[in-house]
Amino acid sequence: MSNLALPSAQPTMNKSALSSLSFSSSSFMASKSSEKLCGYRRTTVKVGCDRRCSKQLDSFSKSKLWVTAKATSVKDASPIVAPAAASDKGKGFKVMVIGGDGFCGWATALHLSNIGYEVAIVDSLVRRLFDEQLGTQTLTPIASLKNRVKKWKQISGKQLSVYVGDICDFEFLEDAFKSFEPQAVVHFGEQRSAPYSMMDRSRAVFTQHNNVIGTMNVLFAIKEFSPECHLVKLGTMGEYGTPNIDIEEGFITITHNGRTDTLPYPKQASSFYHLSKVHDSHNIAFACKAWKIRATDLNQGVVYGVSTPETSLDSELINRLDYDGVFGTALNRFCVQAAVGHPLTVYGKGGQTRGYLDIRDTVQCVELAIANPAKLGEFRVFNQFTEQFSVNDLARLVTQAGQKLGIEVKAISVPNPRVEAEEHYYNAKHTKLVELGLQPHLLSDALLDSLLNFAIMYKDRVDMAQIMPAVSWKKAGVKPVTVSTSS
Amino acid sequence: MSNLALPSAQPTMNKSALSSLSFSSSSFMASKSSEKLCGYRRTTVKVGCDRRCSKQLDSFSKSKLWVTAKATSVKDASPIVAPAAASDKGKGFKVMVIGGDGFCGWATALHLSNIGYEVAIVDSLVRRLFDEQLGTQTLTPIASLKNRVKKWKQISGKQLSVYVGDICDFEFLEDAFKSFEPQAVVHFGEQRSAPYSMMDRSRAVFTQHNNVIGTMNVLFAIKEFSPECHLVKLGTMGEYGTPNIDIEEGFITITHNGRTDTLPYPKQASSFYHLSKVHDSHNIAFACKAWKIRATDLNQGVVYGVSTPETSLDSELINRLDYDGVFGTALNRFCVQAAVGHPLTVYGKGGQTRGYLDIRDTVQCVELAIANPAKLGEFRVFNQFTEQFSVNDLARLVTQAGQKLGIEVKAISVPNPRVEAEEHYYNAKHTKLVELGLQPHLLSDALLDSLLNFAIMYKDRVDMAQIMPAVSWKKAGVKPVTVSTSS
Repeated sequence: MSNLALPSAQPTMNKSALSSLSFSSSSFMASKSSEKLCGYRRTTVKVGCDRRCSKQLDSFSKSKLWVTAKATSVKDASPIVAPAAASDKGKGFKVMVIGGDGFCGWATALHLSNIGYEVAIVDSLVRRLFDEQLGTQTLTPIASLKNRVKKWKQISGKQLSVYVGDICDFEFLEDAFKSFEPQAVVHFGEQRSAPYSMMDRSRAVFTQHNNVIGTMNVLFAIKEFSPECHLVKLGTMGEYGTPNIDIEEGFITITHNGRTDTLPYPKQASSFYHLSKVHDSHNIAFACKAWKIRATDLNQGVVYGVSTPETSLDSELINRLDYDGVFGTALNRFCVQAAVGHPLTVYGKGGQTRGYLDIRDTVQCVELAIANPAKLGEFRVFNQFTEQFSVNDLARLVTQAGQKLGIEVKAISVPNPRVEAEEHYYNAKHTKLVELGLQPHLLSDALLDSLLNFAIMYKDRVDMAQIMPAVSWKKAGVKPVTVSTSS
Repeated sequence: MSNLALPSAQPTMNKSALSSLSFSSSSFMASKSSEKLCGYRRTTVKVGCDRRCSKQLDSFSKSKLWVTAKATSVKDASPIVAPAAASDKGKGFKVMVIGGDGFCGWATALHLSNIGYEVAIVDSLVRRLFDEQLGTQTLTPIASLKNRVKKWKQISGKQLSVYVGDICDFEFLEDAFKSFEPQAVVHFGEQRSAPYSMMDRSRAVFTQHNNVIGTMNVLFAIKEFSPECHLVKLGTMGEYGTPNIDIEEGFITITHNGRTDTLPYPKQASSFYHLSKVHDSHNIAFACKAWKIRATDLNQGVVYGVSTPETSLDSELINRLDYDGVFGTALNRFCVQAAVGHPLTVYGKGGQTRGYLDIRDTVQCVELAIANPAKLGEFRVFNQFTEQFSVNDLARLVTQAGQKLGIEVKAISVPNPRVEAEEHYYNAKHTKLVELGLQPHLLSDALLDSLLNFAIMYKDRVDMAQIMPAVSWKKAGVKPVTVSTSS
């Protein structure tokens, strides 16, 4: 079942792709950076490749994954706004990435490091423990954090500092702050699965405690040790719920009984996880007001994709891809289901509409937030997504992509394990990051094909027992779920 | 300094007051209850009275406290709406009062017990520990919970069940639920001081953990063990902050870009304590939606006063009265300051306007909420206060009341330890409880005099070192405040 011990079963970036990447990077890194990029060429990694791997790579090379990567790197390369001057991009600016071993965090840490930021990863690695405990596993075999960081150093020449510990432990966090002295903190370090938070009481409590107290500790650490530091906090579009009016970015101007005020946008979260982010937002807003610290709350949509230019550089840099019923997110799950011939599991009527974005845009958005910091005392909210889709839209797109690849894809409606509206109005604003320079990677056929092919490449690793939704909102109970759901 | 060991230093209700109370109670308790009320007369308590006590009682008898009490009991008696029929009021209906040893909780437990509810008190008694740790002390010498309950049994013939433990410990809570099988839970069991939550990081974290996790546990306990049970949760008007538009009761209808929805009222809390209540509100709203449980969120204003008819029955039933800079609330603090000749400490400009209510209305509101439960699946919000005052209004009223009693009262402006607007619009709706039958005890000269006299009676217990504000919002730090502020 598991290829975890087979790093050879990974794609190695071929020369032309690597050179595309270099070109792309150099396009926004200026002269000094190009030396470093030359370094990439010199450190092209040789990875042993057994027969199985060859077969996978063969199939892989036929896919449009690298075409897409090239297109992104060259034609669609985002002319990202530099913090000061392009030549100085990221240089000497210290960013702490909390949760830097996770899906978004790892991609972000590499991206920031690649463009010249000095990056420290802070992570308790508890996400890996969740997989062990639940018997789940990322589709992609990820390396240990230690090996990831070592490989990144080999390839890029850049050192990622690592602090392994729990930010709920303030002594640990204090030590990390005093040692690294961050100028920006990107905070991904939360339990981020809605179903996980709805498994049972103890996990609901864990989620809120872990997320809320961890963030409070970060706020106190910034106030006390790095008061100028910019907090870039990952929130979620799920904080807003599905109101029957347009969703604004964090705040809404209300005229009521003849008077007007601009107030925090009302929140209607629908899991203990989403609620934990609502709590964070309120706490952070208060801390900015009371202590004059600065923060950007990135209300992120559902992230799809898995690869960024940096994670694609080597098998040991590969990012995680969750497809299971607890940690997997909509589009990624559908692609894996299509790859293994499982019907796409549409929850209920499938009219649930949300904002989505490519993981390459996640890292771009975080970079933009850091490069354009909030003012001292400011609490700023950006809605971080690029397009809206309903679940039925996604099912249709994956079905079409499958047809092009000769895969027959079916969608079925399964009883909705969540408590949510299945048909509703949804129109969420998302202009602030675009105004800062975001150039979205829109969901295209090409990307869908490549994501599907990626899923196909690793389909032997799929545990079919993990495909179906595993957690019912209504059944969340006090009895701890102790049995691993592993097949 | 301390009279804690002198229960004799308490007023004993005289016969006429007791009979007034009986009359008042019988007015809404019907025939069967009157037997029990006769029991009150038979169990009139004799309390030893030393010379000091005599002097205090002498001064006390000149005050209008009992006049006020009488007026309330007889003339102003609220014709409270019964749950079903008046004769059946409270009978056989089991109410768990979490935090039943506290300021509002104790008064509520006695009131509900008095009108025929079967009451269990759940309390960890940690509020008493806070006093020990901070070197603070209630102005009124309160008896132990054990003795309070024993005395109540002696006086009323009613048994209060007691569960001493921490609701953050789910095993304990589960046991209490399974043992008592509540039909309503009144949840006061939270750390309720804004300054306490702003003392240092560890207390900020304690406050949010204690309040949020405790409430989550209550929600899970209701879902699992008593799904029909009505949660009556104490929130705070401070959840709303001071918006420039009218404050509605929990929800606001917003028309935006041509569409309309009714959404949770935006929250702008201004301490980690107030924020914990915001978090609770969001969690409870979700649980009602997801699990079809029922809840009423009572967004309470600042409570003043100390006595209710029941707490006045005996020295061992007396309620706590906090006047210190951490746990004391505005009007009660001013009365104690006036009593000891300390200038009233107006924070900043004194334009801070809030909703206020008499503690006798707190118990009445809770009774109304229980008697008119939310529907299954409903999350209902009532704003629980009766009048709005600015801090300057209060200072003026206390000064005037002092003049009538021959006390010279001065007010001074002290630097505002909080972060809050000192001049602002404030107009909060509070009609829902009135519609259910609330008959407010408005702040009158008589009440102010009696509260002042109460403060004068116990003024020898005042620790002058506790008078000034003790906690600065801006200085909340990571270093634990370990030194007792006791003089």
